Amino acid sequence: MTLSLSELLEQIGQQAASSSRILAQATTAEKNAALLAIACRIEQSAQTILAANEADLGAGSKSGLSSAMLDRARLDAKRIQKIADSVREVVQLTDPVGEVLKQWSRPNRLKISKRRVPIGVIGIIYESRPNVTSDAAALCLKTGNAVILRGGSEAIRSNMALAEAISMGCSDAGLPEHSVQLVPSTERAAVTLMVQLDRYIHLIIPRGGRSLIETVTSAARIPVIKHFDGICAAYVDRAANLRMAEQIVLNAKCQRPSVCNAIETMLVHEAVAQKFLPDCADKLWERGVELRGDPLTRQILGPRVVPATEEDWKTEYLDLILAIKTVGGLEEAVKHIETYGSHHSDAIITDDCAVAQKFLNQVDSAAVFWNASTRFNDGGEFGFGAEIGISTDRLHARGPMGLEELTSYKFVVEGTGQVRD
Amino acid sequence: MTLSLSELLEQIGQQAASSSRILAQATTAEKNAALLAIACRIEQSAQTILAANEADLGAGSKSGLSSAMLDRARLDAKRIQKIADSVREVVQLTDPVGEVLKQWSRPNRLKISKRRVPIGVIGIIYESRPNVTSDAAALCLKTGNAVILRGGSEAIRSNMALAEAISMGCSDAGLPEHSVQLVPSTERAAVTLMVQLDRYIHLIIPRGGRSLIETVTSAARIPVIKHFDGICAAYVDRAANLRMAEQIVLNAKCQRPSVCNAIETMLVHEAVAQKFLPDCADKLWERGVELRGDPLTRQILGPRVVPATEEDWKTEYLDLILAIKTVGGLEEAVKHIETYGSHHSDAIITDDCAVAQKFLNQVDSAAVFWNASTRFNDGGEFGFGAEIGISTDRLHARGPMGLEELTSYKFVVEGTGQVRD
Repeated sequence: MTLSLSELLEQIGQQAASSSRILAQATTAEKNAALLAIACRIEQSAQTILAANEADLGAGSKSGLSSAMLDRARLDAKRIQKIADSVREVVQLTDPVGEVLKQWSRPNRLKISKRRVPIGVIGIIYESRPNVTSDAAALCLKTGNAVILRGGSEAIRSNMALAEAISMGCSDAGLPEHSVQLVPSTERAAVTLMVQLDRYIHLIIPRGGRSLIETVTSAARIPVIKHFDGICAAYVDRAANLRMAEQIVLNAKCQRPSVCNAIETMLVHEAVAQKFLPDCADKLWERGVELRGDPLTRQILGPRVVPATEEDWKTEYLDLILAIKTVGGLEEAVKHIETYGSHHSDAIITDDCAVAQKFLNQVDSAAVFWNASTRFNDGGEFGFGAEIGISTDRLHARGPMGLEELTSYKFVVEGTGQVRD
Repeated sequence: MTLSLSELLEQIGQQAASSSRILAQATTAEKNAALLAIACRIEQSAQTILAANEADLGAGSKSGLSSAMLDRARLDAKRIQKIADSVREVVQLTDPVGEVLKQWSRPNRLKISKRRVPIGVIGIIYESRPNVTSDAAALCLKTGNAVILRGGSEAIRSNMALAEAISMGCSDAGLPEHSVQLVPSTERAAVTLMVQLDRYIHLIIPRGGRSLIETVTSAARIPVIKHFDGICAAYVDRAANLRMAEQIVLNAKCQRPSVCNAIETMLVHEAVAQKFLPDCADKLWERGVELRGDPLTRQILGPRVVPATEEDWKTEYLDLILAIKTVGGLEEAVKHIETYGSHHSDAIITDDCAVAQKFLNQVDSAAVFWNASTRFNDGGEFGFGAEIGISTDRLHARGPMGLEELTSYKFVVEGTGQVRD
């Protein structure tokens, strides 16, 4: 008898819930043993996973997927080794579960402690890259959470082969085989059904483009933590060290333009625009960056600069394009960022401490930078070890979402018979 | 020209967003001054508020509201004084905004700090009691958040009069008059529109019954923190001090049966049931509690105990009714709580430390108690000063939700020109 899609998801949800109760009680040693076993199983299953990936790529190219999409879904022996190595790296990270966040006594001598516990069951909905399957599984497992994964259809066979290896690793180490489950369906309805399973799932994390996030947000009955656009800016103040400003802008724009913490906009104080822009523009052009500018920028740099439209200020290019705007000072810079930015990562370059402090206070972004590249808004760079993403939400997790952000807490109250008056 | 409902909410949202930017920068002194001014304005507006309340009660009784509903909505001079006093009490609480939660340096000498900031704009949707209007406004204001309130139709005039006084208080102290806004509409569609205003609102807190919470959860595009049922249990272990157990059970059931942290279920170890139940039942009956029990409980206590059905184990009575079940030991007690409870507040009474620790670890509730009444799961009792409610969610806030839980955080990164390799 085959299950209907909703029966299937109900079953997956139930299995995740009962696994999560066991995982919540698992020791760090048990969870680490499972991670090591998973890494081994992934290595041992390399041939199976590669064959599944071949089949995915074949089906994808037949159905007309772009070569960029195919490339993101492609695995080879080296990538599989990297996947296994990443799982092993999670063993080294500190297990946050059980940490006492706070403890205090009350006048009635009740002893209260606030302790980290797993969230429970986490649902992750993502596109393309099969390494998300193992990365997400490893981070959730380390924090004692069961996870339900729903990857993109272009990598369904690869993801299922990976998930199978992960399940075997969990069993090898004596943890529930359903600690990590992949939804074995490419139907779009599976996403809608999954994000409404609030009986079992406590948190949904969508990883993907705007349309995926929209679908999830509209349908979800479960808390969602979004990893949305990064429309990030660097503001070059009149008191900036201009050489430093140039290096930071080049880094923030060019080092990896396709990621969310790269800048899309440069704001330049009018008082230094004439001095700063020509050299900086040359360096950007050398690196193949297209510049789009406001009238003053174009007056200084000439017609090679494309006129910037209203649309440019609110676009996440994720590409070698930079919008440039000259501003009258801090206030205008902050206003621009608050109007058009996405509250992700924004930087000021200045030697004026008072101006910097105002910027850091007034710009309402997950991470604000003074004399440093926005590219540092990253779990690894912050020292969190690994991240499940960079949250653009304000609740529970904001900015890099590492292991601690995959936990909740409970209050443990110890008394000697106290009752309330 | 009158605005349509959606235009009205758009306007309210915009006003809240721009107020929130100013509130986020307000000092503690400025926010406290506003709270004091609000308390004064409420006192000065007492006659207006009472007249509005009269009109609400008149309309309510005409439209057939129950006397319980009318009583909850009723204000008098004493209640208004209490409302003003509660606002003044918030002045004494510590302002969490600006607190440095953590700071560290990276090997590349970047200095990172994690600082508390307001959430932004909070939407609160509630029923009946007009004091929620001022309590919620005061807590949100103290934490630098703008708030949009949507109260029940049975108190719309009272709430509008209160909100008007609050607005005037904000203006008196130089804070934006739109820091606190009440949606001036009793249309149900206003709730649906409000919970989809994700351009402006960052968090929705519904305060009310199951159907309100369901409506909000289904329609919301914004993170929701729910304050749901408390199906709470006390487990009397075989190693319990039975006198202490009796006192705790009586307190947890009878001291205020209508609240979420009162118990609905008592679990009793079979080995002590015969000794414990008769005395305890007498005391409960003396206080007018109806008992519903499993077969062994009825065998011990006789037919005055109503047979408990499956439904009883999962019902939040909020009334003088207690379901009693005998269990074979800790494992069965934990299983019962995990199956039927609502993960709110659960207690064990025992002198056996090992059994207690197992219970505290295994019961997955916002607050777990050892030898103390579940009634202590409360912001005031925990020492948080005031609470906006007791969250039954696991994300962002779990258990009592005080001022700290009304904040988010940002990362402030200070460098000396660092760029990423």
